Amino acid sequence: MVMVAVMGYGVVGSGVVDVLTEHSESIARRAKEEISIKYILDIRDFPGSPFADKFTKDFEVIVNDDEVRVVAEVMGGVHPAYEFTKRCLEKGKSVVTSNKELVATRGAELLSIAKEHNANYLFEASVGGGIPIIRPISQCLAANDVIEIAGILNGTTNFILTKMIKDKMSFEDALKLAQDNGYAERDPSADIEGLDAGRKIAILASLAYGKHIYPDLVHTNGITKITLADVAYANAWGGVIKLIGQVKKLDDGRLDISVEPMFIENGSQLANVDDVFNGILVRGDSTGDVVFYGKGAGKLPTASAVVADIIDSVKHLKARKYLYWADGDESCVRPYDESEYPVYIRVSTDDKAAAAARIKELFSSAHAIVYSEAPSDELAFVTGDMSVKQQDEAIKQLCEGSTKLLSRIRVSDL
Amino acid sequence: MVMVAVMGYGVVGSGVVDVLTEHSESIARRAKEEISIKYILDIRDFPGSPFADKFTKDFEVIVNDDEVRVVAEVMGGVHPAYEFTKRCLEKGKSVVTSNKELVATRGAELLSIAKEHNANYLFEASVGGGIPIIRPISQCLAANDVIEIAGILNGTTNFILTKMIKDKMSFEDALKLAQDNGYAERDPSADIEGLDAGRKIAILASLAYGKHIYPDLVHTNGITKITLADVAYANAWGGVIKLIGQVKKLDDGRLDISVEPMFIENGSQLANVDDVFNGILVRGDSTGDVVFYGKGAGKLPTASAVVADIIDSVKHLKARKYLYWADGDESCVRPYDESEYPVYIRVSTDDKAAAAARIKELFSSAHAIVYSEAPSDELAFVTGDMSVKQQDEAIKQLCEGSTKLLSRIRVSDL
Repeated sequence: MVMVAVMGYGVVGSGVVDVLTEHSESIARRAKEEISIKYILDIRDFPGSPFADKFTKDFEVIVNDDEVRVVAEVMGGVHPAYEFTKRCLEKGKSVVTSNKELVATRGAELLSIAKEHNANYLFEASVGGGIPIIRPISQCLAANDVIEIAGILNGTTNFILTKMIKDKMSFEDALKLAQDNGYAERDPSADIEGLDAGRKIAILASLAYGKHIYPDLVHTNGITKITLADVAYANAWGGVIKLIGQVKKLDDGRLDISVEPMFIENGSQLANVDDVFNGILVRGDSTGDVVFYGKGAGKLPTASAVVADIIDSVKHLKARKYLYWADGDESCVRPYDESEYPVYIRVSTDDKAAAAARIKELFSSAHAIVYSEAPSDELAFVTGDMSVKQQDEAIKQLCEGSTKLLSRIRVSDL
Repeated sequence: MVMVAVMGYGVVGSGVVDVLTEHSESIARRAKEEISIKYILDIRDFPGSPFADKFTKDFEVIVNDDEVRVVAEVMGGVHPAYEFTKRCLEKGKSVVTSNKELVATRGAELLSIAKEHNANYLFEASVGGGIPIIRPISQCLAANDVIEIAGILNGTTNFILTKMIKDKMSFEDALKLAQDNGYAERDPSADIEGLDAGRKIAILASLAYGKHIYPDLVHTNGITKITLADVAYANAWGGVIKLIGQVKKLDDGRLDISVEPMFIENGSQLANVDDVFNGILVRGDSTGDVVFYGKGAGKLPTASAVVADIIDSVKHLKARKYLYWADGDESCVRPYDESEYPVYIRVSTDDKAAAAARIKELFSSAHAIVYSEAPSDELAFVTGDMSVKQQDEAIKQLCEGSTKLLSRIRVSDL
């Protein structure tokens, strides 16, 4: 019998307790040990709960109880989750978590503390909810060099974009619908500004390349400026707009990493990942493209990923799992303005003939997007590969006089 | 330093040697041990090979060398792979394999021998090539009850069907193209008759449900009878024809398991899995649908999965991985004629009005497929749920007189 504690009894925490309780038999078979919840930490009261005798408001009770071998941290946020995690690891307890903010900002330090105290710090649930992705990258793909990871990592923004694409709903209406459905928080900025996806791609990059990539090194751009006009132009071009978190290894060893909306061709495996689903593509030098698809959030998917980590910790109480990365700094990442890619640009102008001529001069191999319902004063085109710096310069020169920039969206090579 | 042996130097075996050699540094980091190839077993000579000093034709050398801790069996076929694997496991050596035929026919016995001798028998590469699927099912989804697994498990048949769907190529021409491209063997029967996919779904079913499901218990139907007419009707219906291996757990604990061509709606995640790619959907009670997608075969993808298992074996030389199922028998599987599903039926007839009236009487909620280019003497329709027995009976009654059955294909609920 192994005793565990669950810290936080919100959506994910209560799901973890439910899964551990309802699947106790099959879990014991797989862990080769019975797993019993000794404590649930929450500052709130839950009178009448079937788990009433397990609740505590005092973290010290948990950290000082040597019988507790594994702790699930499902509180979210950096404080006090960081302090609690650190103290548990220092006591040799393994910690499993769904807390992507904490892993993305303090992962290297916590992994190093775990190593020092021969404990495990596991976080399968922090990316992709119930989709197995951390473990496949670290284990199954162990014999590969990971060339690129690209994914739709945030269900809320994918739901909003899907509504814009399929139902021609405006961004504002789609956001409101997402909030009404419980997919978006009342303050949706972490989702729609791309911060959540940025934390997740930072975690995947750290795992795949062995150095901590902090989220503030990830160039991050959300979906708040995407309009139905852009969606229509993308459709005319033969694709859709998706919010993509992406990391590529460059020849000089640095990483090209970003979260931003991108034009994706309809044929791409990521183009059909719709609604609240996530899809993550891992490109290995031996395996080629492998794609993982499923619900990226939600109580039970996330809880089942946390429980899978609990099982794995119980199976490895005396051994350490290989899940580790060293600290990193800004030298790991290429400055974003050196990134090179084709870009979609839309402008309005009083003189279309003159603007079209300027576009030809300024942008390498620009192709116009033909969209029959386009306003008569608009021009839209997709360029060839250009660095962000070159794009900035060319746009500046184009937008002298009456020509005004309306949109600028990266075109993906996925 | 851990010594390993590679048995078989064909496509996969030479890939394993290449991956182990070219990635030796990152593999050592992940396995926390250097891994060195001591022997390569093959009956052929490879003069001038950079690995010339490692070749042996004598299995006894490998099995009797206590320094060899892990053996990769990549010979294929049941004999002598079975005998070699058994003897290695009995000596406490771990064995990893891509040999789906052996795992599907002798898995329970070999897993039991592995358990007895505290060794591991791992076979990530046996299903889905480089797609991680065995490990995610057994580990990440450990906290789930698996409700259903359905997948496109054979790249050769998927390539042929894709050519029929996208390029209107006949089955015979598409098969010839697959052979010319090296995707199909000169004797393609194991692929096109569904045997290969049958072995793979048998392995996944055994893993998910804990009892060995032998391939001869899997109702298996290949793609040799699929015509371009059926492909066109499927398109008119709003979908495609794919060869699907599927297993579902029934309420009475038995399994519904089959490999057969199916109509799949265009919206399904499996409908867009094209060419030689595989896609596997795992439906868990907590995670919901999770889909794994990638190249299901090929030298390097398969080799990298074998090497990932070698790494895992090296990390667990003294511990056992939980990968096990008990023996099973035909009581685990529901007889196929009790299966219930909607079916697509196409007939020719001299009297369309009479046949249409008979169809209405005989098939519950039958819907005609409207296909503008259909021959004037044909009728095609999709039924509601009916057991296979009921379908047989109704078809028999419909096909009295001039009405003749042309096609009958399962309609999937995926």
